[in-house]
Amino acid sequence: METNPTLTQLSSQNDFQRRHVGPSETDKQAMLKELGFLHTDEMMSKVVPKTIFTKDKMDIGDGISEYEILAQLKETMSQNKVFQTLIGMGFHDTVTPSVILRNVFENPVWYTAYTPYQPEIAQGRLQSLLNFQTMISDLTGMEISNASLLDEGTAAAEAITMAHAVSKKQDINAFVVHPDVHPHVIEVLRTRAEPLGLEMIIQDPTQYDFKKEIFAALFQYPTSSGTIEDYRLITQKLHDHGALVVASVDLLAMTLLTPPGEWGADIVVGNSQRFGVPLGFGGPHAAFLATKDVYKRSLPGRLVGVSVDVHGNQALRLALQTREQHIRRDKATSNICTAQALLANMAAMYAVYHGPQGLEKIAKRIHRMTQIVATGLMKLGFKLESKNYFDTVKVKTSDILALKTIAEKNEINLRIYDDGVGFSLNETNNLQTLDLLLMIFNKGQAAGFKAADLEENLLVAIPAALARKSKYLTHPVFNSHHSETELMRYIHSLQNKDITLTHSMIPLGSCTMKLNAATELIPVSWPEINKMHPFAPSEQTKGYLTLIKDLEAKLCAITGFAAVSLQPNSGAQGEYAGLLAIREFFKAKNQLHRNICLIPSSAHGTNPASAVMAGFKVVVTATDENGNVDVADLTAKAELHKDNLAALMVTYPSTHGVFEETITDICETIHKFGGQVYMDGANLNALVGVARPGKFGPDVSHMNLHKTFSIPHGGGGPGVGPIGVGAHLAPYLPKHSLVKEAGPATGCNSTTSAPWGSASILPISWSYITMMGDVGLRDSTVTSILNANYIAKKLAPHYPIVYKGKEGLVAHECIIDIRPLKKSHNIDVVDIAKRLMDFGFHAPTMSWPVAGTLMIEPTESESKAELDRFCEAMIEIRKEADSCPDLLRNAPHTAEILLATEWTKPYTREKAAYPAKWIKANKYWPPVGRVDNAYGDKNIVCSCPPLEDYK
Amino acid sequence: METNPTLTQLSSQNDFQRRHVGPSETDKQAMLKELGFLHTDEMMSKVVPKTIFTKDKMDIGDGISEYEILAQLKETMSQNKVFQTLIGMGFHDTVTPSVILRNVFENPVWYTAYTPYQPEIAQGRLQSLLNFQTMISDLTGMEISNASLLDEGTAAAEAITMAHAVSKKQDINAFVVHPDVHPHVIEVLRTRAEPLGLEMIIQDPTQYDFKKEIFAALFQYPTSSGTIEDYRLITQKLHDHGALVVASVDLLAMTLLTPPGEWGADIVVGNSQRFGVPLGFGGPHAAFLATKDVYKRSLPGRLVGVSVDVHGNQALRLALQTREQHIRRDKATSNICTAQALLANMAAMYAVYHGPQGLEKIAKRIHRMTQIVATGLMKLGFKLESKNYFDTVKVKTSDILALKTIAEKNEINLRIYDDGVGFSLNETNNLQTLDLLLMIFNKGQAAGFKAADLEENLLVAIPAALARKSKYLTHPVFNSHHSETELMRYIHSLQNKDITLTHSMIPLGSCTMKLNAATELIPVSWPEINKMHPFAPSEQTKGYLTLIKDLEAKLCAITGFAAVSLQPNSGAQGEYAGLLAIREFFKAKNQLHRNICLIPSSAHGTNPASAVMAGFKVVVTATDENGNVDVADLTAKAELHKDNLAALMVTYPSTHGVFEETITDICETIHKFGGQVYMDGANLNALVGVARPGKFGPDVSHMNLHKTFSIPHGGGGPGVGPIGVGAHLAPYLPKHSLVKEAGPATGCNSTTSAPWGSASILPISWSYITMMGDVGLRDSTVTSILNANYIAKKLAPHYPIVYKGKEGLVAHECIIDIRPLKKSHNIDVVDIAKRLMDFGFHAPTMSWPVAGTLMIEPTESESKAELDRFCEAMIEIRKEADSCPDLLRNAPHTAEILLATEWTKPYTREKAAYPAKWIKANKYWPPVGRVDNAYGDKNIVCSCPPLEDYK
Repeated sequence: METNPTLTQLSSQNDFQRRHVGPSETDKQAMLKELGFLHTDEMMSKVVPKTIFTKDKMDIGDGISEYEILAQLKETMSQNKVFQTLIGMGFHDTVTPSVILRNVFENPVWYTAYTPYQPEIAQGRLQSLLNFQTMISDLTGMEISNASLLDEGTAAAEAITMAHAVSKKQDINAFVVHPDVHPHVIEVLRTRAEPLGLEMIIQDPTQYDFKKEIFAALFQYPTSSGTIEDYRLITQKLHDHGALVVASVDLLAMTLLTPPGEWGADIVVGNSQRFGVPLGFGGPHAAFLATKDVYKRSLPGRLVGVSVDVHGNQALRLALQTREQHIRRDKATSNICTAQALLANMAAMYAVYHGPQGLEKIAKRIHRMTQIVATGLMKLGFKLESKNYFDTVKVKTSDILALKTIAEKNEINLRIYDDGVGFSLNETNNLQTLDLLLMIFNKGQAAGFKAADLEENLLVAIPAALARKSKYLTHPVFNSHHSETELMRYIHSLQNKDITLTHSMIPLGSCTMKLNAATELIPVSWPEINKMHPFAPSEQTKGYLTLIKDLEAKLCAITGFAAVSLQPNSGAQGEYAGLLAIREFFKAKNQLHRNICLIPSSAHGTNPASAVMAGFKVVVTATDENGNVDVADLTAKAELHKDNLAALMVTYPSTHGVFEETITDICETIHKFGGQVYMDGANLNALVGVARPGKFGPDVSHMNLHKTFSIPHGGGGPGVGPIGVGAHLAPYLPKHSLVKEAGPATGCNSTTSAPWGSASILPISWSYITMMGDVGLRDSTVTSILNANYIAKKLAPHYPIVYKGKEGLVAHECIIDIRPLKKSHNIDVVDIAKRLMDFGFHAPTMSWPVAGTLMIEPTESESKAELDRFCEAMIEIRKEADSCPDLLRNAPHTAEILLATEWTKPYTREKAAYPAKWIKANKYWPPVGRVDNAYGDKNIVCSCPPLEDYK
Repeated sequence: METNPTLTQLSSQNDFQRRHVGPSETDKQAMLKELGFLHTDEMMSKVVPKTIFTKDKMDIGDGISEYEILAQLKETMSQNKVFQTLIGMGFHDTVTPSVILRNVFENPVWYTAYTPYQPEIAQGRLQSLLNFQTMISDLTGMEISNASLLDEGTAAAEAITMAHAVSKKQDINAFVVHPDVHPHVIEVLRTRAEPLGLEMIIQDPTQYDFKKEIFAALFQYPTSSGTIEDYRLITQKLHDHGALVVASVDLLAMTLLTPPGEWGADIVVGNSQRFGVPLGFGGPHAAFLATKDVYKRSLPGRLVGVSVDVHGNQALRLALQTREQHIRRDKATSNICTAQALLANMAAMYAVYHGPQGLEKIAKRIHRMTQIVATGLMKLGFKLESKNYFDTVKVKTSDILALKTIAEKNEINLRIYDDGVGFSLNETNNLQTLDLLLMIFNKGQAAGFKAADLEENLLVAIPAALARKSKYLTHPVFNSHHSETELMRYIHSLQNKDITLTHSMIPLGSCTMKLNAATELIPVSWPEINKMHPFAPSEQTKGYLTLIKDLEAKLCAITGFAAVSLQPNSGAQGEYAGLLAIREFFKAKNQLHRNICLIPSSAHGTNPASAVMAGFKVVVTATDENGNVDVADLTAKAELHKDNLAALMVTYPSTHGVFEETITDICETIHKFGGQVYMDGANLNALVGVARPGKFGPDVSHMNLHKTFSIPHGGGGPGVGPIGVGAHLAPYLPKHSLVKEAGPATGCNSTTSAPWGSASILPISWSYITMMGDVGLRDSTVTSILNANYIAKKLAPHYPIVYKGKEGLVAHECIIDIRPLKKSHNIDVVDIAKRLMDFGFHAPTMSWPVAGTLMIEPTESESKAELDRFCEAMIEIRKEADSCPDLLRNAPHTAEILLATEWTKPYTREKAAYPAKWIKANKYWPPVGRVDNAYGDKNIVCSCPPLEDYK
């Protein structure tokens, strides 16, 4: 008989926990010792206020191995039925070129990158986003495009609020929307308009009588049901009436149709999904907004621009960046502070790979297939709703249900209207699809003729007056990388310019750059997840519905809330949806006069912007010298506004990285005066497993799946920002007008185009949570706090720590003060941030939430060895500030500069390049010197400049 | 009515062709013009001799799109049934950690790398292979290991021939093999022994009477059926008789058992497959051979060693490399010239990730599960064949068929013996597997007890005397990267040191570094392909069988041969198998006296080695001054040996990159004198679609799927070398004793462990061929010839072209002469090769087939832009040889050296680093300076040195 470890002890069930968490148990002990603790429990009891601390189990399981989660997820998602979905409505199946799938979508160098706020280490993805902007500008015929938006619905809503802002008629609150705009876009517009007091008139603008003045009109081009109309005359008429024209377009159709920029549109929006980005049950995809140059400073979202570095070389960076980081708080009309970078990069690469000829060929093929079916339908006796179309056809019929049934039997989904049936073709269809369609429309009987035979007698369906004549994508970047080898090398040449999680820690305060495990990411490429249309019948989407229900339940268990909505596709969208739920709650109680939203001055800039969008008035409350909410001021203002108090928005743990002791009191105060507490969940990763927001006061909170729950940042998106609410708010979570399963019937109106926002990346968070289990999730939180305190302890002798809790500890991030150094050495945060690049590190968050500071968040995934390297770098930089401050001021040092024949700097080339010994083994070379932001903002160029401009 | 392009014209069917082929149609026209041709036809008629040129279709189809091939392959491979396969025999299901799957197996930076012959640009993969060697040495307890071999069978065969070579008893030709060695290993030994005149005696060595002297004995440890024996006494006895001891081991078992190195074995072989490398229906996997330090210079295969660079820094490189590139021709006992680098890297990373504790835990869990089932079987009344086992158990029973049927009904495959049934457990099994097994052995009835309940009464199954006590994998590299973040960064830090196809052209003559398309590679990760055991019943492997049959047919169509065998898992194995087929052919005709093999002096070094292995006597024939076969000498020697002439081995097009006009005459001559023609197909990529070897003379030829048919080089393997033969040789293609579908019953004996060698990568070539179609394949060939001639034309004014055809053209590669430069400037091939690294290029093949030359093969996948960059680099280097030869002699230049404070070189730092303008956009930095090969060969260190040794 032997007494070896048991099978349970040898199980691989909890293996993932030690893979996700960076420090080994030995390392953790060493770090605890450094902090003066014996156990993590001891540390935690001093970090988290007793009033909220809990050791209760969340009951989400004991964890599961990577091998098992893949099997389990496969089983769940196999319940989805992958049909040929011809529903259209802005979502089309597409062929993701394998070279892009493998080298971008499935490549951690692309998906673990952070938003390119530090341009010197982000030139690769900035170039790709500039390609995206150029592609959008060219195809829409507009002068300038942003670097992507969340989806077509929110892009349209942004366009309308932008039109309102830039229109000279800001007292006019009405706008007209063509009734044949995609229904989900109309719904998002409806959601957005109402709290802002804007009136949406649904009417064909050509029929509008202008008796009531309007500031804008919105068309779909081609329309949702497929018609192509010439909007030149009505555009002229709208302009004559002082109204702006917004067009929501199909990007692929723009290769064949006169683009809106050429018929006078002021703003053009749309979705680039069909440029190689999988359907993914609705998202994430990169929508866009393009406009005229004259409106560039009102453009919502991110904007990549061309500038120069200190050496005069061309360098890219985010233009007008201050708009985003410091949204104009209570005057904001947009809370957009993210993009869909990864998906925009995929779409841009799709255009780079196919080039203008390739895109045109794809469009022409789809169009020709559509002509063939249209011709066949006429032969079968159907009457087309429109003789002009691109890829979408509708016929009126009363046989709707029968056709739907026959189609589904043949694994095809048609678009179902109240008065007819239609379809949209896409790149993946072929002659078999066409024959199948003809058979279906012939009530399941062979049509008696073949699709292929119809080709000789096709009618023109794109009127000559609207056929595109202008060139597009003429830049060399869209005409050079058409072989797979060339595109692969182009992708790799870009990625080699950037620092990502594959190189080193990205210690961004508030941004939680934790591990994005390969096991979590692999399923996102599965067809069961990728090829689902957001409006596929729910009998076909059981896999997704099962996963969504389970993820909602798990997020409830983690947060202590009663219900969760997964619809919001970014953190800011979560804020907006959460506030809308509060608004609906008061509306139901006939208390819509409750419209005051208190927001501490330390809040994320998105908070006040979201509040305004949700129809609230923002009242700012004070913050004390420790960065905490000034409870007295808060109480006073809550009492002052008690009759109209709607909500408080509070970030917890605070944006300063501290667990405020007063959180429960604050919540009580707000409740006492009739308000609801909205907790900004940006820092939820410091709470998971140790405190439940739903139990200690807040009524609603968003959670960032891309921060706390392992969805990668993708170089600046996608994000997901679900909201959790107390039981009293559950009936007011967002619904979706097209998919009844997506929310309560009493819910607030939809905030996104797709019923569950960015559904295809939800499996990432589900896998993370399920693999980690109760114990693992708690360990993540505890280790992130241990890591942050370890850094604070190591750096404290060299840099003052700005805020600590009452026990002298920080939460999961720490802020170090550079203001004394500015005073004594004239060294500022930027100098330190840029010098870190020479060490191969991404900078911490600069000057937020406090100007002149750096906020460091290591996350639980960083090992002690990496933390030590980072601290060594920071300490060495502090020494350099004393001994040779030019090393910092001239940073980052490019190889080219260091190799110049002449060298007059007061330090050696080696010191500049290799400030620590370990750098030699894995040196990162910044491709450009320090970027001049002011130059770029003065000379805004936001599409690819001619090649000769590159130095 | 409109007259737009038709659907056929718009089809995406042929899209892949333009993705695979680098130059656009416009570029091709420009290149043709430069060469003075109007059409490719004109060029081809001057390159390919009329006697062999054909424009006949190959009838392999019109091509198919990437999207469609994935759907079609999925459908085919879905016919495979993925059972839990417990057959064992050296092949075990395994969990590939997702971080390794994604970042190594599916990462083109790892799989498109070339063999690390140029060490300065290959330090990353050399480090990983050194990790592999260290892992093997540690686990087997041996002093030195090679960098992998093809499979366990060939490794055992290499061990036996090596033992024969190093034994002091080379006149003794008998060796003993334990009967409980894996049957496939015994078969490969049988194949190898016979032509070499070695006698294999199958008998338990402990029973051997030594009446006949033997030079070696081979054990399986644990044995094939699972027993663990103590071989200490018999090892001593064998040594006393002067025989060497070879052990074939299970690598995972070595974590728990006393390794053979500690009980005296001289050579240890095995397969590292279960270290995270998918089953893949038998391969590719990394086998290994480890031995004592005293035998290191006789070690077959590649060997990574530690050396220094010119600056005195530690640098890795292939040790004793000359053995491989210049195999001792007619005296060789091994034709091994490849490895399984990609798979060895995966296995090494598996050990790096799990570390010694992790591996031990996996082994202990598997062992404990085995103990549980064994205990259950005894409870059910079965008697175990052995009470000592690791993961494999056998019971004698007569209910064999019944148990097999019940097991398969439960989707489990057992190992079936003549006299019983058994199983081997693996990492993917769990308690459910154990309960299922007990139920199966209980004839399909519930066993009446649960596996989990048996845990308390387990008997010791690893005898204390054989329990491992020594430590292993103590090096920091196996104890530092246990979190996913750390391993991901380690993998990326290594890959960033290397030049691969993701960076630039790799113009290696004879090695054909063409595109490895993502679409071709994606399916290799599918479970239907990955999780199949090579000895699964053929009813479960229909998908593979279908694909194999179709690939064989397509290769026949391409080559014009009557039959193809896909078994050989490398080009050299193909040579060997082809020659064996010839030998069997003569044997069947009672002409075994025909044993003379003519080989021109310009042949690949593997040719004579393979000939010797196949039992032939090598007679070398002359080559004329143009590198062509000296027909007169050949004819004379053929006639001289006409009574015993067996074969000619000839490379076509020649190793000098020329289509010899005399090929048909040569074949006729050989046939006239009764011999067979073996064509070395290394250069088949210059023939596909323009000439059929099976039609113009050769009787047998191998084809390199990893050169001509897009399987990636993987940093030095895997390769696949199928052979095609004329109808008269078809009955003698290799068979496999365990799988009757694998070859003709009359075939030569198996050359590999698995029936179809490296089956899991065959879909890559199948996809390539099917997507390209007739027209695309021909275009590949034509473009590769166009590209080579374009380079030759551009370089000719600067470097003499060594060989051309009679029209002044080369085939698909060209050799440039550096000997004049050596004479005039004392600049040699190495200087140019290393200077190319500063330009970001991998060197062409150095000094092969002609010393003092460089052989350049661009392949069809390189664009004109890349060819132009390469030519610009070569021309600039030629100028530098005149103006500043030190730039070449000091190359490659590391960043560290260029940044030294003191600079005394006669050129600027910039000139060294950025010799062309375009380099700045994507600079590659060699991590080490020029490596000192002599130092390393004098001081051989082939496992990871202690950290303090790194400078």
